[in-house]
Amino acid sequence: MNEQLFGWNEQTWLYLDQLGILAGNVMLLFSLCAVVFGWLRRDNIRRWFSRNRFPHIGGKPEGKDWQGLVFTVSRDELPCWVIGQLRPKRIGLLVTDHSEAAGKRIQAYAEQQGIAVHRRMIENADDPNEVYLRTRELLQLLRGEESGRLAIDITGGKVPMSLGAFMAAEEAGVDSLYVSTRFEQGRPDMRSASITSVSRTQ
Amino acid sequence: MNEQLFGWNEQTWLYLDQLGILAGNVMLLFSLCAVVFGWLRRDNIRRWFSRNRFPHIGGKPEGKDWQGLVFTVSRDELPCWVIGQLRPKRIGLLVTDHSEAAGKRIQAYAEQQGIAVHRRMIENADDPNEVYLRTRELLQLLRGEESGRLAIDITGGKVPMSLGAFMAAEEAGVDSLYVSTRFEQGRPDMRSASITSVSRTQ
Repeated sequence: MNEQLFGWNEQTWLYLDQLGILAGNVMLLFSLCAVVFGWLRRDNIRRWFSRNRFPHIGGKPEGKDWQGLVFTVSRDELPCWVIGQLRPKRIGLLVTDHSEAAGKRIQAYAEQQGIAVHRRMIENADDPNEVYLRTRELLQLLRGEESGRLAIDITGGKVPMSLGAFMAAEEAGVDSLYVSTRFEQGRPDMRSASITSVSRTQ
Repeated sequence: MNEQLFGWNEQTWLYLDQLGILAGNVMLLFSLCAVVFGWLRRDNIRRWFSRNRFPHIGGKPEGKDWQGLVFTVSRDELPCWVIGQLRPKRIGLLVTDHSEAAGKRIQAYAEQQGIAVHRRMIENADDPNEVYLRTRELLQLLRGEESGRLAIDITGGKVPMSLGAFMAAEEAGVDSLYVSTRFEQGRPDMRSASITSVSRTQ
């Protein structure tokens, strides 16, 4: 059968066979080298794959069409101002013992404007993992109701709260925001307020 | 040639040929379906690949063998306490106009103990990107001098400072820490201090 193909003779086919075997051996050698190299550098390779990346840090947020917002709450002035600026359809509040009253004021303000409000209590504001888990719940609730982009405002709360909420937001592909203001006599001066993007995920 | 192999006759080889062609077609169809599916879901797939993950949030830090530490500085008591606890070989300080004096006190305390100190000024503590870039510089400096694990203490500074430093740490595969303390009369009570892990990268 072979001899008829292309009119090649048996010698040519034998050469091709040997070329094939040679190519196979080279591939085998190459694969073995790759395996050995990969084994020696396994920690670097694993770290390279699993490392987190933040390609869009800082600047002004692009677009303002967030349908849902989650806030780490310490006082009510800033979240209320953000709600007025961005006009979300629904919000989530992460509150602690200290900020429960502020959370209720934000809730009243939001519900007045027909915004749906979800709340989660944080027992230990120093535990980033608790905040991370509660933020995930809120993001799932907000996402479940209707499609649309979400964002998280990490201005309020203690540092572990902001960090825990930020990690949940990054895992969910949700933008994170921060509100800069000047403080005068212990109160934020909302005329100086502006929204900064912490990390954009898309 | 073929007819001699295994003693199979030409009919068997023809069947095998046709089986091969059938398998090829099935593979082709499968590949085409995969391409179409991948195209339709391209955004989801890209998001899944590019999404950040934080598998180790919270808890007590494992091991305390960090060779280098970076601090976001607002006051000197907490970083000095952490230096005493973890005994790093070298440190980096992220200071602002407001925390420059505290930064100098930390530097004096560290140099007394033979710890090498690097400093970076932050012009705008509300810009997470500036803090991210300065933190990267400090981590490169600390890493360049000698091998060993690094960590970052994000307790001090404003929220965008902690976040900017945290993002640089995650990209560099560096652990992040937070110091919890009770405050009494406006000063941290270091007897109540404890170190929490924000995110472990390995």
